[in-house]
Amino acid sequence: MVFDEHGWPVDAALRCVLETVSPLGIERVPLTRARGRVLAEDLCASRDLPPSAVSMMDGYAVRSTDVATVPVGLAVTEEICAGRQPRFALAAGQCARIMTGAPLPAGADGVVRVEGSRRLSGDQVELLESASIGHHVRPQGDSMRAGDVVMQAGCELVPGAIGVLATLKVVQVRVHRLPRVAILSTGDELEALDAPVDPLKIPDANSYALMAQVQALGIEPDLLGIAPDEPVALQAALARGLEIADVLLVSGGFSVGEHDYVQQTLQALGVKQHFGRIAMRPGHPLMFGSHAGGHVFGLPGNPVSSMVCFELFVLPALRRLMGHRRVCRTEVRARLLEPIRTHPQRTEFVRVRLTRDDEGRWLARPTGAQGSALLQSMMLADGLLRAPVGAGGLAAGDEVRVHLLDQAVFRVADTFGEHT
Amino acid sequence: MVFDEHGWPVDAALRCVLETVSPLGIERVPLTRARGRVLAEDLCASRDLPPSAVSMMDGYAVRSTDVATVPVGLAVTEEICAGRQPRFALAAGQCARIMTGAPLPAGADGVVRVEGSRRLSGDQVELLESASIGHHVRPQGDSMRAGDVVMQAGCELVPGAIGVLATLKVVQVRVHRLPRVAILSTGDELEALDAPVDPLKIPDANSYALMAQVQALGIEPDLLGIAPDEPVALQAALARGLEIADVLLVSGGFSVGEHDYVQQTLQALGVKQHFGRIAMRPGHPLMFGSHAGGHVFGLPGNPVSSMVCFELFVLPALRRLMGHRRVCRTEVRARLLEPIRTHPQRTEFVRVRLTRDDEGRWLARPTGAQGSALLQSMMLADGLLRAPVGAGGLAAGDEVRVHLLDQAVFRVADTFGEHT
Repeated sequence: MVFDEHGWPVDAALRCVLETVSPLGIERVPLTRARGRVLAEDLCASRDLPPSAVSMMDGYAVRSTDVATVPVGLAVTEEICAGRQPRFALAAGQCARIMTGAPLPAGADGVVRVEGSRRLSGDQVELLESASIGHHVRPQGDSMRAGDVVMQAGCELVPGAIGVLATLKVVQVRVHRLPRVAILSTGDELEALDAPVDPLKIPDANSYALMAQVQALGIEPDLLGIAPDEPVALQAALARGLEIADVLLVSGGFSVGEHDYVQQTLQALGVKQHFGRIAMRPGHPLMFGSHAGGHVFGLPGNPVSSMVCFELFVLPALRRLMGHRRVCRTEVRARLLEPIRTHPQRTEFVRVRLTRDDEGRWLARPTGAQGSALLQSMMLADGLLRAPVGAGGLAAGDEVRVHLLDQAVFRVADTFGEHT
Repeated sequence: MVFDEHGWPVDAALRCVLETVSPLGIERVPLTRARGRVLAEDLCASRDLPPSAVSMMDGYAVRSTDVATVPVGLAVTEEICAGRQPRFALAAGQCARIMTGAPLPAGADGVVRVEGSRRLSGDQVELLESASIGHHVRPQGDSMRAGDVVMQAGCELVPGAIGVLATLKVVQVRVHRLPRVAILSTGDELEALDAPVDPLKIPDANSYALMAQVQALGIEPDLLGIAPDEPVALQAALARGLEIADVLLVSGGFSVGEHDYVQQTLQALGVKQHFGRIAMRPGHPLMFGSHAGGHVFGLPGNPVSSMVCFELFVLPALRRLMGHRRVCRTEVRARLLEPIRTHPQRTEFVRVRLTRDDEGRWLARPTGAQGSALLQSMMLADGLLRAPVGAGGLAAGDEVRVHLLDQAVFRVADTFGEHT
């Protein structure tokens, strides 16, 4: 594909990324480490659950015909606890004290809850409520039946799914392995986190912001540090990154400057470039390439641009490698509170804070100055407002699309119940 | 407070939880482990960033007066790379080749981008574009000024905040410590994950579903296993849980049955109960108590009820202990696709899947059977629809509130760009 000087449209670039990467191979992990991973096998139930009909209440297991007319006095044969086998079948005129989750005795077909009973003596009870067949009874196999496919490959192991795996007694589970991610910053102007302050340099924020974005997906990246603008050292650092990682993230070194050797060095190392520029702001100079052992994203040197590119392209790539079907961030609709000017030929992503109106609808307000070096704007943002190409600007009151960031997943409690 | 037989309203119970727990003490963690934690100190910038005025483009640093009329030929004094000190001040008729991020030489007050230039010879360039004062220049201190409070205590360490910490060169950061959480299941009917199959028992799903819910908050809980319905062993297990944990989660043993010793044992161990029942479904029998060393939630034995109670009460408690201000899950508004019947006297939480209509608005559809033992419903759910008390039911088309669960944070890519 060839696009104009502004580069690839955002959607075309995302499509390219998602068509290029595919889920990684399979490994076995213990159930205690499986949360957030993606199941790589279908799993069947090996038994019925519950294994037999059980009571859903504390009460009395009865023959429904015996309690068709109430009140009625019945003889109590035994007390049945959860996890214990009933000893006696019920004959006419008999019932059994039963606990929640305990198996029904033979002959019983319903349960009267304890609140509907009056104990008369040690082995006599008066039942005040009737029970139709199946009343307060969970039938055998209600949750699952032996042989049922209970979980399918591709299932995201959210907490509910981990509970189902425990129900299936899966101690080790086959999941897609996590991508190995390496992070390299480039540029002689960068100062390492543990280096002394140099008045000519700026701290390397990109390595750590990207690290945290990767960690938020459950992946622990390798930090390769800062490569200098010097061909031999740069080539060595890039070669190492390509060797150890499924996905190498390089930030900086992708502008038109003569000292940006990154692109040509990657090419020399066998990386085939899919695209090199995106018609978006921030994040215009974004490179995506592949080699025999994995993929490379060349991210802009400005921290905000780099983080926005991660959200839009790297995150979906990593989630696809992990086997997820849901690879992109959720978006919400919001009403814009302030007018904004946007780039007429590029999709613009504006950092916004989200609040609610009285009816609980989302409201979006820009975080303030949107310069791509102003990392505080990403610290404050709940989301990225996506302003389409060609708009040139948005007015207060416009309905906009907002890509939710990590901190939008939670809210303060003060609004809880406000909209009941 | 005294409420009717249905128990405490959901909002009153949440308020009680949030008024009872408060943020834990402070510890220092390395920046590489700080993501998701909450900052416990204000942090100031120790220097201006950028440390001096820098170019935002690759191009030529100029005196704006020299390029008031273009094209104009200027003498190139030097080439200034990012991270290097300029050697010469600009005199009239001079300019300097400059790279993105490089400091402006003395005398320069604007930048002409390289695309607006034509190199004539080794030290002569023709500039085709003019530059006003400050054009393509990032002023000194644009990102932050020495002494500015850049981050405040209470800040959630999302990836953007981790980047800002790196900018401040914070190698170790003071954060609220994470709560220690212990999980104990109770009930003779439960079978441990690694125990052989017993036809009278059911697998312990609660321990693992709760484990995963806790892990999703970045906390690794202690799994205390299954306590039997036997007073001495149960007391020992509960005492151990209270001793080691800031928050003990006990599931099962909170119904009215004679074999549910949990409540009285906790009381004997010094736990003061705040509430014992909530007017909600699922999750009615929920106990919350405190003792000198921490807090206890007594969760229902049914896995779905237990998970829903976690979402609504335990998650906010744990996030408050971690120091978060945003303690509750985000909610969205959705349109209900199917009528549902709900409990008239209790707030009902219905597991739903979320999709979108053509305009990108949320649609909610129940996951199917809503029995509180049907853990598959939590595996499939994107959210919990909150049906208020008194409604008795909701109609197709009603606008509803949906509490978002983990998997709703991401979406499939197919809809990307659909609503552009």
